[in-house]
Amino acid sequence: MPPAPLFPAPEHARIAHPRAHWYVACETRELARRPIARTLLGTPLVLFRAEHGAAAALLDRCAHRNLPLSAGAVVGERIECAYHGWQYDGAGRCRRVPALAEASDHKGRAVPAFATVEQQGYVWVFGEPGVAPTSTPFRFPHLDTPGYASARFASEATATMHAVLENMLDVPHTAFLHRGLFRAGPKRAITAVVRRFADRVEAEYVGEPRPSGLVGRLLAPRGGTVQHFDRFLVPSIAQVEYRLGDSHLLITNALTPVDDFHTRFVSLASFRLPLPAAVVRAVLTPLARHIFRQDARILAMQTEAVRRFGGESYVSTDVDLLGPHIWRLLKQAEQTEIRPDTAGPELEKRVELQV
Amino acid sequence: MPPAPLFPAPEHARIAHPRAHWYVACETRELARRPIARTLLGTPLVLFRAEHGAAAALLDRCAHRNLPLSAGAVVGERIECAYHGWQYDGAGRCRRVPALAEASDHKGRAVPAFATVEQQGYVWVFGEPGVAPTSTPFRFPHLDTPGYASARFASEATATMHAVLENMLDVPHTAFLHRGLFRAGPKRAITAVVRRFADRVEAEYVGEPRPSGLVGRLLAPRGGTVQHFDRFLVPSIAQVEYRLGDSHLLITNALTPVDDFHTRFVSLASFRLPLPAAVVRAVLTPLARHIFRQDARILAMQTEAVRRFGGESYVSTDVDLLGPHIWRLLKQAEQTEIRPDTAGPELEKRVELQV
Amino acid sequence: MPPAPLFPAPEHARIAHPRAHWYVACETRELARRPIARTLLGTPLVLFRAEHGAAAALLDRCAHRNLPLSAGAVVGERIECAYHGWQYDGAGRCRRVPALAEASDHKGRAVPAFATVEQQGYVWVFGEPGVAPTSTPFRFPHLDTPGYASARFASEATATMHAVLENMLDVPHTAFLHRGLFRAGPKRAITAVVRRFADRVEAEYVGEPRPSGLVGRLLAPRGGTVQHFDRFLVPSIAQVEYRLGDSHLLITNALTPVDDFHTRFVSLASFRLPLPAAVVRAVLTPLARHIFRQDARILAMQTEAVRRFGGESYVSTDVDLLGPHIWRLLKQAEQTEIRPDTAGPELEKRVELQV
Repeated sequence: MPPAPLFPAPEHARIAHPRAHWYVACETRELARRPIARTLLGTPLVLFRAEHGAAAALLDRCAHRNLPLSAGAVVGERIECAYHGWQYDGAGRCRRVPALAEASDHKGRAVPAFATVEQQGYVWVFGEPGVAPTSTPFRFPHLDTPGYASARFASEATATMHAVLENMLDVPHTAFLHRGLFRAGPKRAITAVVRRFADRVEAEYVGEPRPSGLVGRLLAPRGGTVQHFDRFLVPSIAQVEYRLGDSHLLITNALTPVDDFHTRFVSLASFRLPLPAAVVRAVLTPLARHIFRQDARILAMQTEAVRRFGGESYVSTDVDLLGPHIWRLLKQAEQTEIRPDTAGPELEKRVELQV
Repeated sequence: MPPAPLFPAPEHARIAHPRAHWYVACETRELARRPIARTLLGTPLVLFRAEHGAAAALLDRCAHRNLPLSAGAVVGERIECAYHGWQYDGAGRCRRVPALAEASDHKGRAVPAFATVEQQGYVWVFGEPGVAPTSTPFRFPHLDTPGYASARFASEATATMHAVLENMLDVPHTAFLHRGLFRAGPKRAITAVVRRFADRVEAEYVGEPRPSGLVGRLLAPRGGTVQHFDRFLVPSIAQVEYRLGDSHLLITNALTPVDDFHTRFVSLASFRLPLPAAVVRAVLTPLARHIFRQDARILAMQTEAVRRFGGESYVSTDVDLLGPHIWRLLKQAEQTEIRPDTAGPELEKRVELQV
Repeated sequence: MPPAPLFPAPEHARIAHPRAHWYVACETRELARRPIARTLLGTPLVLFRAEHGAAAALLDRCAHRNLPLSAGAVVGERIECAYHGWQYDGAGRCRRVPALAEASDHKGRAVPAFATVEQQGYVWVFGEPGVAPTSTPFRFPHLDTPGYASARFASEATATMHAVLENMLDVPHTAFLHRGLFRAGPKRAITAVVRRFADRVEAEYVGEPRPSGLVGRLLAPRGGTVQHFDRFLVPSIAQVEYRLGDSHLLITNALTPVDDFHTRFVSLASFRLPLPAAVVRAVLTPLARHIFRQDARILAMQTEAVRRFGGESYVSTDVDLLGPHIWRLLKQAEQTEIRPDTAGPELEKRVELQV
């Protein structure tokens, strides 16, 4: 009865579910006395502070009648369901069933628990419940390096994690969509070297003069030749790095796949620049907000079109440097844990761009 | 393409469809000159007053071009479609097709009709069309017993009929969710005796002292030992009964399964209490409204969670006294008519509770 | 888990997808500097003015990352995507990929294009992309005939194209739903002659006196016997024609199936009447608006009921003169191009109506 679609999607949307990895669930300051609800890879979680204030993450569903535990309260070091008052500790064990005469701690009453690590102002959660991860969460670089300062940003996009990653690491759209912010003036040819490793892929832009836009001026007020990297670290880190002499700007985005078509991220910019940190922050934060507003609008339209047509139908060219590699690494990450690369690049390729 | 859910629902939601039974469709005072639309077990109905003012219930779909008849008007003793003016009597027979030269009353133009009974201020409808039921609707007790007064209440929950029934007859949540209204002060152990019959299941709370909360004070201002029953009558009656000496309070809820996740109900409290009826009503009605607001919020969250996870995943304990039995009786009621019990309890069980 | 529906739809909704035909996409005046988005048979299109101002219609999806091209801008004679600036000409060829050093015009980067014709103030689009149609769009009659004037109207209904066609050409509902506008006073019997041809079906109302309602008075202030035709021309034209002596009123509706349950249409009334054109327009336009508001409400309710019940369950009588024939012709039009009829009527039938 629904009409045969005139344009069937030749492939479905690029959605990966790399579960057995660490993701940022919230910021440290968001998790206080009250439980909060978060969704990770489509799975509803409740976060709360359990024993000794440690962040805990449980499946957001009471074992008894399935109420979201996030609608309940934290009582002491336990989360309490709002319906019958069942209480769970940070490991998901049921510790109290108020009306029950016998002991409450029955194995069948437990709620799945997810490993957590709190570091550098963020609470990370492991996407697979009931396991003790052998890996540790990503650490943002240079947070404690002398001479470096930092700025933070966070937002959400209505798009797949793959679409957001590709967007964040894509140079061609910056020259068009964000015209004037990154590059200005007449176009020039630059060379990119793409290198894919077992755990990451990066594009290095070789011999690029100082970008003529606002970002370039911030980075290198006196001009010069910039070293510029765009980098994806499996499964969820998008990094943009600029170097010029002693100047260094490293923007690291940690993405969280909320569900198939929603992605949150936190951004941390670490920088050592010939300008006071307060000045850099005063420019960088509104700039990030402005750029991301433009991107968020585009990503939402892309997502709506993909859903309307029932899937993606993408054509790529040589200047889509990283997207296909990101996808390959994401799919690998669905199957395996990350092995930090030791073997060096498994692929290296030079591409000319006009930007 | 949709991710394999991390927590597949081990069973689906507990939704029964006991069709061949009587349900309250509306209150007598709601059905006047204009037709009204109601949904019963997912089936849209139109109610109107037909021959001699008798309540009639038809499928809410004109046989001709499927317009909802409830969007039309009552003309004399017939309902008239708003599009071409086809008219139907209370039995669903087509009695007029304005543009047709020949006779209108053609069998193929009839609309399915549902049996109705109007009694005690409510219009009851039989859930299976085109049959003459052998059973009669439930009668609210003590409406005409001398010395008894009554109060009425009605509302709707976003939940399955099973979830609402279990909620209405569940003691443990009253001690937690409605803290202070039913019970207060330190906990005590009480004993419940559960008895399941062919047509009902009840829990009797044995030797329970007068509840210390507001309800208890209303019932027995001078204290004493209370007889308390929670009772489910197949397929849709939830009854709560308190007795203490001459005092008697009987709250009967008649539920109507609107569709899988919406349930309406009317409540009728019959009481003989050592307080003027007007005083009891002045306390009981806002109290019922307050209690049900708390329950409705919980039930809506439970429903949302069940839908989000794709089904229920319930763990029960011994103090979930009635829920499993209600489910068993509801499923039986899908297959058979109710036979009033004559054989006595088919199951009897004692359970200790802390409340 | 969803209940077996009590009333399964014996047939699904009458939805045809006659693709290889011409449909009105927009009015000439709607298409200026900015691209506009339209949907035809569920397919999203972008319309813009390309080479020499010619109307162009492309699939509304950039080949690169699937952004809707209608969210971009027209640059010169090309449409430009808002994300990376890819540009397409009116034939859908990719003419520019800004960041690409090599040539852009690669066959795999093209976007499907739909033939267009602009005539009589409307932009018509052919529903099948990538083909050169052998047929031409319908031409509204009498637009340039001396002595004739015209009035235009346009609107949209939440209904299948079949339901809107049947509604526009149905006499019985005019006598009931639009009581007083077309006919008034006591009912009378009239005779309709239905004739179906290979490319159309029409009903001629024989010997009908001047309609007593407002429309009749407008047409023939001095009374007389009217010639009245209701006519469907495959696949999307609904025509109502009145003649009385020299007076002539011809209302032609060109429908556009937006998607299965949304239909747009433009109406063009051509008339030669014994009243000044300005007077006729001043009466006709608000009248059309009023009549269609009544129909739109009915059609939306019909659609909602059909969707709620999962399909149509229609009973027809002899006075449903055209609906079944329209359906037959629509289904034929899914398979074949229109062959203008030369063989004469393949069916002729007389029916009595009471109106």
